[in-house]
Amino acid sequence: MSYAPQPSSDTHDLEQAKTWLRTYQRVRAATEAICAPLHKEDYMVQSMADVSPPKWHIAHVSWFFEAFILKPFQPGYQTLDPAYDHLFNSYYETHGVPFPRAERGAISRPTVDDVYRYRAHVDQAMQALLKNPPQEHLPEILRRLELGLPHEQQHQELLLMDIKHILAQNPLCPAYRVDLAPGLAPTPAREVPPLGWLAYPAGIREIGHDASEGGFAYDNEMGRHRQFVEAFQMADRPVTNGEFLAFMQDDGYATPEHWLADGWATVKAEGWRAPLYWVERDGVWHHYTLGGLVPVDLSAPVCHVSFFEADAYAQWADARLPTEAEWETVAQDVPLTGNFVDQDHLQPIAAAKADGMPGQMFGDVWEWTGSAYRPYPGFRKLPGSLGEYNGKFMSGQMVLRGGCCATPADHIRATYRNFFPPEARWAFSGFRLARDGGA
Amino acid sequence: MSYAPQPSSDTHDLEQAKTWLRTYQRVRAATEAICAPLHKEDYMVQSMADVSPPKWHIAHVSWFFEAFILKPFQPGYQTLDPAYDHLFNSYYETHGVPFPRAERGAISRPTVDDVYRYRAHVDQAMQALLKNPPQEHLPEILRRLELGLPHEQQHQELLLMDIKHILAQNPLCPAYRVDLAPGLAPTPAREVPPLGWLAYPAGIREIGHDASEGGFAYDNEMGRHRQFVEAFQMADRPVTNGEFLAFMQDDGYATPEHWLADGWATVKAEGWRAPLYWVERDGVWHHYTLGGLVPVDLSAPVCHVSFFEADAYAQWADARLPTEAEWETVAQDVPLTGNFVDQDHLQPIAAAKADGMPGQMFGDVWEWTGSAYRPYPGFRKLPGSLGEYNGKFMSGQMVLRGGCCATPADHIRATYRNFFPPEARWAFSGFRLARDGGA
Amino acid sequence: MSYAPQPSSDTHDLEQAKTWLRTYQRVRAATEAICAPLHKEDYMVQSMADVSPPKWHIAHVSWFFEAFILKPFQPGYQTLDPAYDHLFNSYYETHGVPFPRAERGAISRPTVDDVYRYRAHVDQAMQALLKNPPQEHLPEILRRLELGLPHEQQHQELLLMDIKHILAQNPLCPAYRVDLAPGLAPTPAREVPPLGWLAYPAGIREIGHDASEGGFAYDNEMGRHRQFVEAFQMADRPVTNGEFLAFMQDDGYATPEHWLADGWATVKAEGWRAPLYWVERDGVWHHYTLGGLVPVDLSAPVCHVSFFEADAYAQWADARLPTEAEWETVAQDVPLTGNFVDQDHLQPIAAAKADGMPGQMFGDVWEWTGSAYRPYPGFRKLPGSLGEYNGKFMSGQMVLRGGCCATPADHIRATYRNFFPPEARWAFSGFRLARDGGA
Amino acid sequence: MSYAPQPSSDTHDLEQAKTWLRTYQRVRAATEAICAPLHKEDYMVQSMADVSPPKWHIAHVSWFFEAFILKPFQPGYQTLDPAYDHLFNSYYETHGVPFPRAERGAISRPTVDDVYRYRAHVDQAMQALLKNPPQEHLPEILRRLELGLPHEQQHQELLLMDIKHILAQNPLCPAYRVDLAPGLAPTPAREVPPLGWLAYPAGIREIGHDASEGGFAYDNEMGRHRQFVEAFQMADRPVTNGEFLAFMQDDGYATPEHWLADGWATVKAEGWRAPLYWVERDGVWHHYTLGGLVPVDLSAPVCHVSFFEADAYAQWADARLPTEAEWETVAQDVPLTGNFVDQDHLQPIAAAKADGMPGQMFGDVWEWTGSAYRPYPGFRKLPGSLGEYNGKFMSGQMVLRGGCCATPADHIRATYRNFFPPEARWAFSGFRLARDGGA
Repeated sequence: MSYAPQPSSDTHDLEQAKTWLRTYQRVRAATEAICAPLHKEDYMVQSMADVSPPKWHIAHVSWFFEAFILKPFQPGYQTLDPAYDHLFNSYYETHGVPFPRAERGAISRPTVDDVYRYRAHVDQAMQALLKNPPQEHLPEILRRLELGLPHEQQHQELLLMDIKHILAQNPLCPAYRVDLAPGLAPTPAREVPPLGWLAYPAGIREIGHDASEGGFAYDNEMGRHRQFVEAFQMADRPVTNGEFLAFMQDDGYATPEHWLADGWATVKAEGWRAPLYWVERDGVWHHYTLGGLVPVDLSAPVCHVSFFEADAYAQWADARLPTEAEWETVAQDVPLTGNFVDQDHLQPIAAAKADGMPGQMFGDVWEWTGSAYRPYPGFRKLPGSLGEYNGKFMSGQMVLRGGCCATPADHIRATYRNFFPPEARWAFSGFRLARDGGA
Repeated sequence: MSYAPQPSSDTHDLEQAKTWLRTYQRVRAATEAICAPLHKEDYMVQSMADVSPPKWHIAHVSWFFEAFILKPFQPGYQTLDPAYDHLFNSYYETHGVPFPRAERGAISRPTVDDVYRYRAHVDQAMQALLKNPPQEHLPEILRRLELGLPHEQQHQELLLMDIKHILAQNPLCPAYRVDLAPGLAPTPAREVPPLGWLAYPAGIREIGHDASEGGFAYDNEMGRHRQFVEAFQMADRPVTNGEFLAFMQDDGYATPEHWLADGWATVKAEGWRAPLYWVERDGVWHHYTLGGLVPVDLSAPVCHVSFFEADAYAQWADARLPTEAEWETVAQDVPLTGNFVDQDHLQPIAAAKADGMPGQMFGDVWEWTGSAYRPYPGFRKLPGSLGEYNGKFMSGQMVLRGGCCATPADHIRATYRNFFPPEARWAFSGFRLARDGGA
Repeated sequence: MSYAPQPSSDTHDLEQAKTWLRTYQRVRAATEAICAPLHKEDYMVQSMADVSPPKWHIAHVSWFFEAFILKPFQPGYQTLDPAYDHLFNSYYETHGVPFPRAERGAISRPTVDDVYRYRAHVDQAMQALLKNPPQEHLPEILRRLELGLPHEQQHQELLLMDIKHILAQNPLCPAYRVDLAPGLAPTPAREVPPLGWLAYPAGIREIGHDASEGGFAYDNEMGRHRQFVEAFQMADRPVTNGEFLAFMQDDGYATPEHWLADGWATVKAEGWRAPLYWVERDGVWHHYTLGGLVPVDLSAPVCHVSFFEADAYAQWADARLPTEAEWETVAQDVPLTGNFVDQDHLQPIAAAKADGMPGQMFGDVWEWTGSAYRPYPGFRKLPGSLGEYNGKFMSGQMVLRGGCCATPADHIRATYRNFFPPEARWAFSGFRLARDGGA
Repeated sequence: MSYAPQPSSDTHDLEQAKTWLRTYQRVRAATEAICAPLHKEDYMVQSMADVSPPKWHIAHVSWFFEAFILKPFQPGYQTLDPAYDHLFNSYYETHGVPFPRAERGAISRPTVDDVYRYRAHVDQAMQALLKNPPQEHLPEILRRLELGLPHEQQHQELLLMDIKHILAQNPLCPAYRVDLAPGLAPTPAREVPPLGWLAYPAGIREIGHDASEGGFAYDNEMGRHRQFVEAFQMADRPVTNGEFLAFMQDDGYATPEHWLADGWATVKAEGWRAPLYWVERDGVWHHYTLGGLVPVDLSAPVCHVSFFEADAYAQWADARLPTEAEWETVAQDVPLTGNFVDQDHLQPIAAAKADGMPGQMFGDVWEWTGSAYRPYPGFRKLPGSLGEYNGKFMSGQMVLRGGCCATPADHIRATYRNFFPPEARWAFSGFRLARDGGA
């Protein structure tokens, strides 16, 4: 199920490097496929500070391989332009001065063609390196490659999030891909099953990545550790658009007692009255999708809601969000399948018939948990600049779990910890309810 | 050790109410004593949005008794001015529209004298109520009184925090009380003991308030529950000014790798280079205290640092902040004594000689933990408007433990959870280090 | 008509200095009389950055005499507190670093009593100086006194403007002086005369202060110079509340074509829909006055409107605002009488019966002109720090003429140039219409 | 000298329309020539709110002809996309809701190709209309065309200003056209002549456009009127980079007494210490030009300074800026030649040898005057939506005169009034000194 063979520190042979090269090529090609429908103009837009122009993504993921693999380990490597090291450094303060995030949209040069040339330049050098790797550095090269590829996959999802946000600003509501539209119309016949609850007893649980079992994981998922989890119940599927609409119709966005104080302040400051991308047309709620503007499918999981909205809904529903330990307790026994980017639907899909099992734990929507994003016991960040990858963001953010319809299937796992600030809505983020107590 | 006899729902007699009345009078008098050194002009200042003018505090704590006890339970109670219900409602959205927080400093009427008249009016009515309580409501009255009194104690500490912030804005550096100054000069002879580490084994721990043992606790401390805590070590005292100065001299405020990303952004935006209230005069670090500007006592615990600074120091020192479960594990076996407001020192004091026990767990400085402020398992907020007391702030804040030199001794307990946003510095906040692993 | 005997450079005798001392005492007493109804709490409020706490005004006008007269010319003068020179310097960058304007409300010490002590200290020193002036400096002392006294008078008007703004923020709508209220109720019997137009032919006009005629004037009014003024007509009275209400009822605040672009942006950003201090109660427009909240007198001149509102009204009425040359052309033949602060009405009054003469040119409301505040030909600012008095504000502001109901009668003259940014509304500002062409 | 034959209301024949069509085609082609060196990515950037993406300019100038000529007067005209009327309306509130200015850079569709298609569509329709104009509307069509063509020329200059600003944000400092660079290097041999002063006597002057003489002018230049101008002297050339550098070296940017209060606040808030686009490299001042980064030519007029900087320099130099009446008095006797966009130098050039005549009155740099942008006597804005063209901006801006090296030669005239806010620097703006008094 993992996207590549695992490097082991004692196998340095060429075969392994070649296998990694094929994976590298596959991941890189997937990024380019996502951008294929874009016009050059689309590549340039930064619709808010959190969004990066697609052109920047394309360059930054290449820079990552250049800065952390090619420059240290490929003798004689020549960069295409020394200025790129500044322009395409995202946030690595220990690597140099990153170009200001909010101004990424102001840089028209290098052009899209230039950036693809840079991409090809890096690919060529990576191919040369992996075909003929310096033996003494191969383990470190592969360790960094093993990080660089999921890094690029994360940017694949970010690209889809950002492209959606970029095109949604446009009053013309242009589709990213018109071919998606037919599949996104609501199917009125399909009815979502009633919400079921699955009970779990109290006990010591183990969560986090078990390094001894192999497989890649980020530093923030390490290491496997014990948590005491009280008895709880977990919903067998995420909350749907139809259910969320009932909250809206019950004045959910106008009733302060459902909301966290910061959430309520955000509702008032931003004028929220529906999830992001929702718009009422002639009395019918539509939402902008990557296939354009379509009526909301009431059976599908609600998406593009913030933690604040998820929490308020849970308060209203007399429930709560699961902790990440509860979520992982449930997820570790569930097969790792779902509606991922590989399905090419790019929008959450209504749950199948209930079968007494937790449904849609993976794919469809990232699920907000009630857990703040903080380090696990014994957390150690990666050495050097790569230590900035995850650890420094462990403040002010909430954990989401399970991946979504824009996540590559081979990128996700039960221990995976995604995180966003509680007000963020441009990820494909939904939620699932939990409640206290046993069966 | 608690500040008053505990109400039990089956004892409604007059004696109990009279005992409570005495406690009420004692707590109310303490608030007024804090304000005694103020000029009317001091009562008016709102030096930042988080600070409230002392006049507002004086009125708001009275409003609390009026709104939640007198109006519902004292038949025929007449308020002094119906407008006060709007002016002095802090944030109870379900009670009415609170007056905008940031504009509290713009309201010159009611005057200070008016507000003390209001205070006396409420006191008189509370006295009448408690001398002759309606039997059927007495349990609920006492339950609310039991919340209203620590509420007022919290505002006593806030008053000292806010008065310090207010006077510190003034280039004249006026002392709140000049009589404090002699006790605040550093005592060069006194040397702080070297930092010791106390080891705790892994295991299931119980934390949170045990309702069955009686005594008051806020809803956010309920209920006693199990957590699995890995083996850890705890420092035997907080970090001192001298130790923090070493961090500063090692370019701590200029080295991004020590900092959380949000912390680093704050350092740059605010130009931080020392704790709040520190100022360099002729090469010597001074700090503003409630007794005026004095040289920093290098032996005393560092104070007025944010979570970000505490976390950066810990990174630099190759340690970390304790979780709140770790902190409470240690604290529950420690006597509840320390440098509280009752000592009337109003500034943290250097640790005594080390004795192999955790020192200064209570009093001196609130200690930042590494735990985000989130609900305990089974958390239930109070019913009605009082449900807004704690629960709605469980987002974007970090937990602090142990009370400080501005906290009433009978207000604190091992289970007490204080909380502030990670950038806040105007509380008397310091920190203690922890690290992984056993002895 | 001027407030004091004129100094002439060759008369240095004691008599003159004594006469000036009496004027000084009269002006200083007037300031204190304005503040007499205030509580100490009122003295502290800074309701917006443009408003200064009354305590600050009281101190600043004293600082002016200290900084520019006592320190340079009174041998052995001792200030009360050296820190005041920083705290009460308004904007004289060449004199030292002024305390930040927006933080004036954060300074509780010196207290109101301290500030009055400072005031008395300055008064005593000024009295000593003027009773026994150093002969060689007397001309310069008197020249500066001649500026310091109108400076204090300007602050008298500012005090009334600021007190009004301060108390108006308070939801209790407290009156500054309840004794004013009876005189402020609208008098339904009184009808305003229909607007008349007075025609003036084209020609070269002379405006500006004629130094050869003596009398005090600010540097910005110097010197008398020629302007060519085309034929124009001037309204015989200011626009009334009733007329302005017709503009409002004709959707004036919702119709962009009446407005300057910056004005329209301000209307939308600030949500303006009526003049400042207007509030609708049960379908009737009231406004906050220094006597409290009263129904709007439709016959009285509209007040507390910005230049943008004045200009939009004029556009709507197919007219325009007069230039300052036109205004002065008309005003220089009109007696210098009107509804000034001396009348103690503190609110504009309805025009008397029309008599074919320009009415209410002086007093009632400052009249916005269509002229930007720029230097006259040959403008020379005062030497030294006093050069900052007027000249540096000649950007981004519009000229107002004629004084208002809060202006001392002996402070105003036909050549007087007041100025405010086009969006300012807290002055007693109204306007009068003009139009092109002859009779 | 004017860019096209003048329409007269009684000549409706086809010949005249055909001549206008040729002018139309010439102006439109000039716009496209300016954009020819751009990449599609450059077309997308909005580097600050005042800057529009070149793509938007290209579309907006076409929209102008569509909205004001084709839709009203071309029967059966079909727009390419109804949404464009919203997207490309700049600020005509009476025409519909303009798309928010600051978000122009967020719209990737229509693409650059789409926008050129729209442009061609409008051109085709304009050609059809002018080849076969409806006789009864021809005068109005030509009147609007006569406005639409200078409108497009203004956007040609804006395009050059905006392209310069866009590319200057880029740390790569890319040249707009590398072929410009050789001509932009300073020529050390060339020395600028010493500043000469030309004296003008006092008297009634006539300024403004004389409608009876024919030729196009904007509404804000109408009509010819008298102003009394005191005796003055005018510098015979603009201030140079070398002279401005002397101001900088004399601490000009650090000395508050030279500056208007708003200017000084801007200096501090923005950290100004040199004109826009200046950057010090190894102790030598360079500036970004449309040919890339080159050393500053000390002999050339200083450019990209704000009114605030021009005024501060004049204060420092014991002079002042001319009023617009003074400027026009001088300019109306000077031949309308200079360094315009037609020279294709795109940067100001050093003055030629002095000849006792006012030099460089036209071209090189727009010259800030000391006059606020306010209406002339008798000003009437155009009827309908076109009335928003100029009049509504007559607040908060200063007048500039004479055109610059990015202005089309046939666009400028002695009466032309350009205007920008006093802090704006991205126009090619410089200044010339004046002073009071005769020879």
